[in-house]
Amino acid sequence: MAYPQETFTRTILSEGSLIARRRNAVASKTLFYQLKILKETGRYDAFRLRPHPSYDDPPVVWPIPNHILWESDVAKWIEGACYLLRDWKDPAVDSAVQELVDMIRGSILEDGGLNVHNTMVALGQRFTNLRDLHELYNAGHLIEAALAHNDFYQHNDLLDPILKYVELLCRTFGRDTERGQIPGYPGHPEIELALLRLYHRTRDPKHLKLAKFFITERGNPVGIYGRHYFRFEAHQRGENPHAILPSSGEPDALWYYQAHKPLVEQQTIEGHAVRAIYLLAAAADLVRLDPTSNAGLKDAVYRLWDNMVECKMYVTGGIGAVKQWKGFGPNYFLPQGTDEGGCHAETCAAIGVMMLAERILQYDLDRRFSDIMELSLYNAVLTSMSHDGTKFTDVNQLASSDQDPSKRDAWTASACCPANLLRLLGQIGGYVYTQTEEYPHQVNVHLYVPSAYEFTSGNKPATLYQTTTWPWEGKVVFGLSTISPLVTVSLALRIPGWATNWQLDPSPPSNDLQNGYLILSAEWLSDNRSFSLSIDISPRLVTPHPLTNQDTIAVVRGPVVYCVEDVDNPWVEDHFKTTLLDKESYFAEKLVDDETTGEYYVALSTKGARMLKTEGIRAYPSVPFDEAAKLDSSNIRELNFVPYFFKANRGGRGQARVGLRRWHDDL
Amino acid sequence: MAYPQETFTRTILSEGSLIARRRNAVASKTLFYQLKILKETGRYDAFRLRPHPSYDDPPVVWPIPNHILWESDVAKWIEGACYLLRDWKDPAVDSAVQELVDMIRGSILEDGGLNVHNTMVALGQRFTNLRDLHELYNAGHLIEAALAHNDFYQHNDLLDPILKYVELLCRTFGRDTERGQIPGYPGHPEIELALLRLYHRTRDPKHLKLAKFFITERGNPVGIYGRHYFRFEAHQRGENPHAILPSSGEPDALWYYQAHKPLVEQQTIEGHAVRAIYLLAAAADLVRLDPTSNAGLKDAVYRLWDNMVECKMYVTGGIGAVKQWKGFGPNYFLPQGTDEGGCHAETCAAIGVMMLAERILQYDLDRRFSDIMELSLYNAVLTSMSHDGTKFTDVNQLASSDQDPSKRDAWTASACCPANLLRLLGQIGGYVYTQTEEYPHQVNVHLYVPSAYEFTSGNKPATLYQTTTWPWEGKVVFGLSTISPLVTVSLALRIPGWATNWQLDPSPPSNDLQNGYLILSAEWLSDNRSFSLSIDISPRLVTPHPLTNQDTIAVVRGPVVYCVEDVDNPWVEDHFKTTLLDKESYFAEKLVDDETTGEYYVALSTKGARMLKTEGIRAYPSVPFDEAAKLDSSNIRELNFVPYFFKANRGGRGQARVGLRRWHDDL
Repeated sequence: MAYPQETFTRTILSEGSLIARRRNAVASKTLFYQLKILKETGRYDAFRLRPHPSYDDPPVVWPIPNHILWESDVAKWIEGACYLLRDWKDPAVDSAVQELVDMIRGSILEDGGLNVHNTMVALGQRFTNLRDLHELYNAGHLIEAALAHNDFYQHNDLLDPILKYVELLCRTFGRDTERGQIPGYPGHPEIELALLRLYHRTRDPKHLKLAKFFITERGNPVGIYGRHYFRFEAHQRGENPHAILPSSGEPDALWYYQAHKPLVEQQTIEGHAVRAIYLLAAAADLVRLDPTSNAGLKDAVYRLWDNMVECKMYVTGGIGAVKQWKGFGPNYFLPQGTDEGGCHAETCAAIGVMMLAERILQYDLDRRFSDIMELSLYNAVLTSMSHDGTKFTDVNQLASSDQDPSKRDAWTASACCPANLLRLLGQIGGYVYTQTEEYPHQVNVHLYVPSAYEFTSGNKPATLYQTTTWPWEGKVVFGLSTISPLVTVSLALRIPGWATNWQLDPSPPSNDLQNGYLILSAEWLSDNRSFSLSIDISPRLVTPHPLTNQDTIAVVRGPVVYCVEDVDNPWVEDHFKTTLLDKESYFAEKLVDDETTGEYYVALSTKGARMLKTEGIRAYPSVPFDEAAKLDSSNIRELNFVPYFFKANRGGRGQARVGLRRWHDDL
Repeated sequence: MAYPQETFTRTILSEGSLIARRRNAVASKTLFYQLKILKETGRYDAFRLRPHPSYDDPPVVWPIPNHILWESDVAKWIEGACYLLRDWKDPAVDSAVQELVDMIRGSILEDGGLNVHNTMVALGQRFTNLRDLHELYNAGHLIEAALAHNDFYQHNDLLDPILKYVELLCRTFGRDTERGQIPGYPGHPEIELALLRLYHRTRDPKHLKLAKFFITERGNPVGIYGRHYFRFEAHQRGENPHAILPSSGEPDALWYYQAHKPLVEQQTIEGHAVRAIYLLAAAADLVRLDPTSNAGLKDAVYRLWDNMVECKMYVTGGIGAVKQWKGFGPNYFLPQGTDEGGCHAETCAAIGVMMLAERILQYDLDRRFSDIMELSLYNAVLTSMSHDGTKFTDVNQLASSDQDPSKRDAWTASACCPANLLRLLGQIGGYVYTQTEEYPHQVNVHLYVPSAYEFTSGNKPATLYQTTTWPWEGKVVFGLSTISPLVTVSLALRIPGWATNWQLDPSPPSNDLQNGYLILSAEWLSDNRSFSLSIDISPRLVTPHPLTNQDTIAVVRGPVVYCVEDVDNPWVEDHFKTTLLDKESYFAEKLVDDETTGEYYVALSTKGARMLKTEGIRAYPSVPFDEAAKLDSSNIRELNFVPYFFKANRGGRGQARVGLRRWHDDL
């Protein structure tokens, strides 16, 4: 096994396909655009340790200084660049990476300290506000950058200073308070999963120990002198115990940080979605790396995964219903947009869902994880970037409103998402195929993406080819090329949970699935080096769980969730609030080669849409039943759908919606 | 014209009817119980100006000291007592009122200052935090107590010190900053409506001027030295500009106080519901008392009323969808309970709706105001008290949840609502009938309540009798008794907007309604001193506005909204989330003489309820359409309804719901 950050090099994406085009867009546009922004804003030079005027700016999100996330922005850019440089060698990117690395090397303090804010702005305040100041979050991203850098450049220019910094962290954090250790953990998890990756590389038990400490100590109600660490720390800082951060809306909001109780005791997934999902991704990795670490941890990961997917996830795979804390609301509270009372569905959180799914798949090959991984990729992650890699969203609502129209913006401010997308797409090939420690002689195919996967069969190089136009067509042709005549590995092909009709040609010995994967033995493969999987991806109608009280229909085709937007439905004036969809609707499919964007996709249309007649309906405050919800029967519309991830690419007025209200016969 | 606080004495409620029983309950139970609590908690003795240990308690709602509302609690109790003492003379209550008045008199400072907190706790901080510290709110309640006290005792023992305090306020507040005036206004409106009542009594233009100043200055973005007053004041206090109060969730949340812009510019009703509604009640009164005061104010009152009723009011008449700030959410965001994402529907806010409706009815006799007044009374106000006047709710959700079960609590803490209910029920007769300044020779009948109304016909005393069991039956028999043979007044009977069938017997000359009121001329009345109005109050089904996305049905009978609760439907386990109601349901009506409570009401039942089968439906995260929302057809239930206001009176497990999901034929 290894991480997608490492294994992606084995996957060669075929030119021209959707995922390859997006990766190409970030390599040719986003990477340079973000570098320009890093330079313009001062981030690029931050590690030179010179004063910057913006250090005095008032914090946008008090009390977190605006520049506090600069290091993670830089680190994610380095990480993404190191993934992309393999396929797009560029001297400007290469020298920027080297210059950044030199600056980072030069900025490290004698004791291993490595944090611009602590060195330049808040001298003497190191590790005094773990809850808010993102020092450990930044450290985590620096570790990940260093690993990627080491992989690509094959030297330790970045890894060395980072390891020195990690040494400081290993000395500093732990339960040994008598020897001056701090029994604290970061307000924003991230370093945990980075440390586990680092441990996987170094096998230094200190790295495992620190990650495990951060994960298991979190939420300890009596972590230090009988008090919760975050409360203790806040008291030490002299913080007003009534102080409220904008993101939580109440004082002492430990749940916002998933620190209200130890992870093993948490029954539902709560708080800030990115924090929660990064923590779970790390916990899942700890379960794999150190199975004896904590009996309850594995259960907790499953329990919180199930709670998330079944009760707190949008049909797009997005998570985070509550805008205020960019996180989870009560079970089944899933408003589609601002004027329904919420919806944040942050890009980084969706990326985190993919990370978590991938981590679990390493020890539990079950399509209930990979189905969600694919759903999130196409609908909660890809949605966040314009087709050409120049505009982004952090928030991915399912319905627009006048307050929050459907649009993307250039990357400017302290947004964490675009750089996260950069590094995800850089390593995306690593999510397509895995080979696990438990079954090293099996190649698991999670995603259908035109590509070649290089692996080893009987110590000889081998390649698995996928040829497909997925997600636009459901047929995937596989070809297996080995040097030795004998195939020594089996294949596991994910058959999506939504696939009611599928077939393999030639037929396998058995169509039985193991947790949703079709296992093709080495023996069968030896005789069948070319075969095709055909999955019926006809449009299907889905609905959120009935307890969401969202009596809506969403249209899905294969893994792709669709939406309507005003560009194709120019008559819309109300963000499709009163557009009703018949559950018996027939959908025409049309392959579109879009002129404006040069993109290629399948559009859907149906003639079955009715309009709810709300004009003249005034509530005082209720409406007599007979007067409510009349159909405007003169007004039957053709409705045109595009993939949700493709919305806001062709201009328009910012009106879009995924879940359409259901038309009932008896309205 | 006069205010209900004054005119209620003309209405004699008939013994034994619902409203009379509730008024009796507060007079015989609540009044004494609250007095006991006032004494036990220190509130009673606060005006003695002695230190109290609780003054040092940490604030529950930071930064507002817990005792800051004590004065309003005492004032509302005095006010309520003065209304109730007329009908229930009680020496203990009488002497408690007198002792409190003596203490208040004794606590006033030489300069007119009258505030326990400023005198005992925060010396020198008077009027330095108008936004939070409720000094002016308390002053308003003291004014209202003084007016009620003056009316009942016919002397000025309380009014004198209060007038002295008001003199101080008139000197202190205003635009004349050069002469040291403070151009501020209260964070919690209330004094405005009290000052207008005071002006109506005193005709002292200073009182009108101050009320008008508070109302029109509010929200001025450049009120002092080019800054918003609340921002200026916070800066002066050295408040961290990022400080967030628990109630708003963001810094600088002027909208929470309805101070984000001047009232005349506000397009939608926002923020804390009680504050908003008190402010509007005062504005409506200012429109009447000083029609030239501000051209836009009348429009603003109508605009915000319409926005509230049509887009932000529950079918019960409750307002305030967002729990965090006890106030308004986006238009049409009306979740029924906590696990749907909100619902506060505070009792005080509903009382405020009645106050606002009553104020507007003084200059605009239109049933769109009185319909809501009646709706709020029965469903959003009466709901807040147990049948016997011993238990209360501040929050009136439409659906229970495990987190927030349906129950009432004893009055203990700093809850404003129970004392507000006490004073409302004390004066409730004043809401039944009005005579306005514009049409003094017309008696308007807004509510059907068994009662007698004493008025003047041709300078001779006259009485209008209502005999009815409303709201249980729709027939109201009127009798007019005058000394002179000639009747000189007309009557206006409200025909509720929901009444599709009604008739007057004997027939009036015309059934034409004027803004929903049937006008019976003095001439017709001279010939018809007894007549009856019959309104069809058959159960009817209503639904919230379709844009609420609440595809629910609520059952209403006359003005009474019904609910289901577990006591009558013991099989329920899920707070009726999966109970579906057929829009064609037939409702059996049954007059119940309840043994447990001694209460008398009409219960409803229907056999048409179906159960949604959610068992086994798991979202990943969507549900294929065919698998969702299946009916459990073996499971057709009889559903038993009780009036919503009657819920939680007979024990049970705290499960209740108003709006039931609609059963569609094509589920």
